[in-house]
Amino acid sequence: MRRLLASAVLAVVFATAGLRADTHRFVPTQFYNTYSFAHPPALRVKPGDRVITTTLDASGADKDGTQKAQGPNPQTGPFYVEGAEPGDLLVVRIEKIETNRATAYSGSLLAPYSVDPASIATRQDKDPKRVTWQIDKAAGIARLEDPDVRPAFTLPLKPMLGCVGVAPARKEAITTPTPGAFGGNMDYAGLTAGVTVMLPVNEPGALLFIGDGHARQGEGEVVGTGLETSMDVEFTVELIKKKPAAWPRMETATHLMVLGSARPLIEALQHATSEMLRWLVADHGFSERGASVFMGQALEYDIANVVDPNFTVVAKVPKVLLPRR
Amino acid sequence: MRRLLASAVLAVVFATAGLRADTHRFVPTQFYNTYSFAHPPALRVKPGDRVITTTLDASGADKDGTQKAQGPNPQTGPFYVEGAEPGDLLVVRIEKIETNRATAYSGSLLAPYSVDPASIATRQDKDPKRVTWQIDKAAGIARLEDPDVRPAFTLPLKPMLGCVGVAPARKEAITTPTPGAFGGNMDYAGLTAGVTVMLPVNEPGALLFIGDGHARQGEGEVVGTGLETSMDVEFTVELIKKKPAAWPRMETATHLMVLGSARPLIEALQHATSEMLRWLVADHGFSERGASVFMGQALEYDIANVVDPNFTVVAKVPKVLLPRR
Amino acid sequence: MRRLLASAVLAVVFATAGLRADTHRFVPTQFYNTYSFAHPPALRVKPGDRVITTTLDASGADKDGTQKAQGPNPQTGPFYVEGAEPGDLLVVRIEKIETNRATAYSGSLLAPYSVDPASIATRQDKDPKRVTWQIDKAAGIARLEDPDVRPAFTLPLKPMLGCVGVAPARKEAITTPTPGAFGGNMDYAGLTAGVTVMLPVNEPGALLFIGDGHARQGEGEVVGTGLETSMDVEFTVELIKKKPAAWPRMETATHLMVLGSARPLIEALQHATSEMLRWLVADHGFSERGASVFMGQALEYDIANVVDPNFTVVAKVPKVLLPRR
Amino acid sequence: MRRLLASAVLAVVFATAGLRADTHRFVPTQFYNTYSFAHPPALRVKPGDRVITTTLDASGADKDGTQKAQGPNPQTGPFYVEGAEPGDLLVVRIEKIETNRATAYSGSLLAPYSVDPASIATRQDKDPKRVTWQIDKAAGIARLEDPDVRPAFTLPLKPMLGCVGVAPARKEAITTPTPGAFGGNMDYAGLTAGVTVMLPVNEPGALLFIGDGHARQGEGEVVGTGLETSMDVEFTVELIKKKPAAWPRMETATHLMVLGSARPLIEALQHATSEMLRWLVADHGFSERGASVFMGQALEYDIANVVDPNFTVVAKVPKVLLPRR
Repeated sequence: MRRLLASAVLAVVFATAGLRADTHRFVPTQFYNTYSFAHPPALRVKPGDRVITTTLDASGADKDGTQKAQGPNPQTGPFYVEGAEPGDLLVVRIEKIETNRATAYSGSLLAPYSVDPASIATRQDKDPKRVTWQIDKAAGIARLEDPDVRPAFTLPLKPMLGCVGVAPARKEAITTPTPGAFGGNMDYAGLTAGVTVMLPVNEPGALLFIGDGHARQGEGEVVGTGLETSMDVEFTVELIKKKPAAWPRMETATHLMVLGSARPLIEALQHATSEMLRWLVADHGFSERGASVFMGQALEYDIANVVDPNFTVVAKVPKVLLPRR
Repeated sequence: MRRLLASAVLAVVFATAGLRADTHRFVPTQFYNTYSFAHPPALRVKPGDRVITTTLDASGADKDGTQKAQGPNPQTGPFYVEGAEPGDLLVVRIEKIETNRATAYSGSLLAPYSVDPASIATRQDKDPKRVTWQIDKAAGIARLEDPDVRPAFTLPLKPMLGCVGVAPARKEAITTPTPGAFGGNMDYAGLTAGVTVMLPVNEPGALLFIGDGHARQGEGEVVGTGLETSMDVEFTVELIKKKPAAWPRMETATHLMVLGSARPLIEALQHATSEMLRWLVADHGFSERGASVFMGQALEYDIANVVDPNFTVVAKVPKVLLPRR
Repeated sequence: MRRLLASAVLAVVFATAGLRADTHRFVPTQFYNTYSFAHPPALRVKPGDRVITTTLDASGADKDGTQKAQGPNPQTGPFYVEGAEPGDLLVVRIEKIETNRATAYSGSLLAPYSVDPASIATRQDKDPKRVTWQIDKAAGIARLEDPDVRPAFTLPLKPMLGCVGVAPARKEAITTPTPGAFGGNMDYAGLTAGVTVMLPVNEPGALLFIGDGHARQGEGEVVGTGLETSMDVEFTVELIKKKPAAWPRMETATHLMVLGSARPLIEALQHATSEMLRWLVADHGFSERGASVFMGQALEYDIANVVDPNFTVVAKVPKVLLPRR
Repeated sequence: MRRLLASAVLAVVFATAGLRADTHRFVPTQFYNTYSFAHPPALRVKPGDRVITTTLDASGADKDGTQKAQGPNPQTGPFYVEGAEPGDLLVVRIEKIETNRATAYSGSLLAPYSVDPASIATRQDKDPKRVTWQIDKAAGIARLEDPDVRPAFTLPLKPMLGCVGVAPARKEAITTPTPGAFGGNMDYAGLTAGVTVMLPVNEPGALLFIGDGHARQGEGEVVGTGLETSMDVEFTVELIKKKPAAWPRMETATHLMVLGSARPLIEALQHATSEMLRWLVADHGFSERGASVFMGQALEYDIANVVDPNFTVVAKVPKVLLPRR
């Protein structure tokens, strides 16, 4: 919260003024496989509140490896945010994402849309086995030793959530492998502890869902998974009233970001770019032409995933390049 | 050369052993608007040689603002590399790219494929004027002050070449706004001084062309241009014999990269990813499944451009993540 | 029913044996804007039954022009088909689609994805007015006379339903502008009286919805609408037990068809083509290679729409070209 | 010529007035694998002239099965049309396309972009053998009997040319598997005897190339080939001066057509649709809005190919639907 208010970029008046923030320790018992207005709230929270909870891995297993729900991507939540109404912007600050068990699994073959179609056959006729990684949290690494994978190697942990979403607009119910304007399974490696996620509110209470933790993930998620594992998660929620947004936004210490999701890939990019233009014009002092010229020479992109029912592209502006105001 | 040989990654035997490297100061007088086998060599160089030369801006103007050739993207070259034959890999180390005049120009409206089609109209009915930037080389910045752009702002210089290419395969002649397997107008902001570009050789002598310098460019090149200006350029050439590559590769201090170019955007990504897989298997000790698993959790992508006749996506592997061998 | 059983192509045993078919005159009073398992059945019918009913136009107006429901594409139904279970194939024979009022409306500007992005601006800054057509049912034509449209002209009526769908799989709820594996807003000009539509059953009772009648429509639906109007509709339902299908199929007097829906357009085509291959192998005596060779020289395609959230492509095989068995 | 002038649609003044038309029997001895301004004219013809010639099959074999040139798609030509200048429209009336040998070959596996990527593997690991068809010209059929293809079957002959093209603009040289604004390998099953093909002129003399005859082809060309065989071809050429066109056009007895070629598929459609709009406005009495409304309810599309380096979509207007003028 402090860091948010200190931001010169996101100078907003929160709806939390005067309320005492609570901390909720929430142990989920029910999990969902759709983002939908129809699911009953699991917990009611106020803007400013902190939630300490856990997520299952993408297949439904918890920190003990016990199957607690059906995959794919069973969600913790929904969290009903008091006062949230359609047209508001839900602000979710991710305070902590930590692995809470010693293993993760991942795919081992490149996914169809990540490689040339003509070259798929040589791989897809192979065993699409999942491989198991050992998580050494103290050392901050994940280690893969599998007889079918040469050589053995380790990679640094970088825990993230594949899924952060709210109830979709127009009473749609969308399965949890899918990202969209409501957030959902964006599978963005940059959605780590320390970031602030902003989502458009479509239903009263917003109905926030989280899930699908990855101990690490490459851009594109080209094997169809990250290092899938269960997580301990903490986040705080805020609300910006009457602040419409067409796509999820993020703010980090260094960047403003918009996450567009669609097929084909270019449409995901178009959504992200168009929304970034609107954001720069609305909140950062640019004329439309000014924002266009600036973006032409300052924009960065990440490709979050090319494996989900919608692909996700992230348009990014380095905050250090924004003009002083 | 030294830095290349010091690389643990690119441990190759160059064809230069025993030859004395020359330095060529080449003043171009003829410029080309196609990549083609049919253009006569402008200069013959040996592997190991260094070339000191200049490039015009994308519209054909030189360091004095004098129109020297017709746009778009008139090319300096072609440089005939002695000993280069189809199936070899041409290695071009970019030693220097420096702006050599005080102005650059850029577009001022977002390009069609970078934004939602429904939102283009609001911009495209406006004057698509080019804007002029002041380059302050000493301060390392470009400054834009234009009555139609609000606010005025500055951005750091980061000089790059939009075009580095060779004669295409199968006797094609391709216009210089187009990138492809032969390189060309990839418009990648990461193609700066210090990088090593590797291109497949399709014709005897390779026929290297360079051009289209940008004082800076955002990812995607979403206004259709970088900061277009003339450049002083230095590079050295090497040759790896009998080393086929399907797409241009790059190596920097930190990354291995492959640049895939195509439409739609996903095909550019597929070309880059497929070639990275081949590279990791051929030169970095991975089995195919090992490279797949590694890429799934280690890959990064840049989106070079979404405005040229082919779009360009860069698949990147951080060298620090590669397993020790 | 008779015609279906007479088909040499669709030689199936229906689940209707021994039951007396009923005819239901169903006057809808409730309309839906999502395809969803969650809507209560409006009418229960048996395989073999006939339903005589009506549909509103896409904006929710009935045969008198009275607004009866909210747009877009409010649906009549859902019809619960007794005995239908996931894994079955619902067979809907469209017996009649007739306009029941004297006017229709259509868009008057080309939609974003139907034309080059660079050329949209010249059109989209114009008034996107809807135009009103006069329907002369006796003469079989629709006439457009509008001061903004030059010249005035008439086109033959060819009534069709934009929407025929069932409850989607995996408890998704999808808005009615969207087509998919469950059918929905495929906007195919060939979905006229006389065709047989086959849809995969995802929920008990299938839950059939219909709506969005067009007095006529061009391929692609490039102005974003057909001639939108209310309709009198008759259809019969049958059921093929344990007959999985991945995508909607159709059979006419002359063709077998599969309707694939997705973005990008090529994926819609891929879905339709892949499903046609499976159909030819499963029911028409082809080996997989035989079906491939045959499709290579015999396949036809229609482009149903390029304006909905998913685009729809129809893969077609002329029945006259099928080998005698 | 007569039929052309009788057309109410294509009421143009030809540049042929006053010249006597010649008939040229041209036996090709040199064949080309690129469309390029750089190839020397094989024959000079005047507007109004008729050419009687032959084409090799896609692999370079002639009517005796003798290898006469290297594949793919070796071209007969180029024919230099006297008086043709950039900005003119070359009119090629295809008078005859007839198979001249008893066999054709085709692919036997579905091509990568025609089917779902996940399903390719099951096919691509199989032998991609070519199969041989027997052509029974008297009976008008092609017969396939191959031990690997079940069942044996016959299909009606419908001879066509895969390639009709001119020298590309801007001095590009493009390989003969590729279609584009210059025509080329459009692989459209509707390009049969009796049609009139219209191509934009980019170079003096236009430089017309033809080749790649198919005894028959399905829409999409989903096995990557038609029934590839050598052909006897007759055509006449005309010229419409100062008649710019952005894409190839065709006129048949029943339809006006535009052939757009690009990747992705939607861009091919966009090019074809945009050019049809321009054509209807320029030559058929429509206002822009009038043409849009008309196309929305009257347009048809064919998908020519989804296997070449660019895909080709054909936008079609039935002439019977055009308003009387």
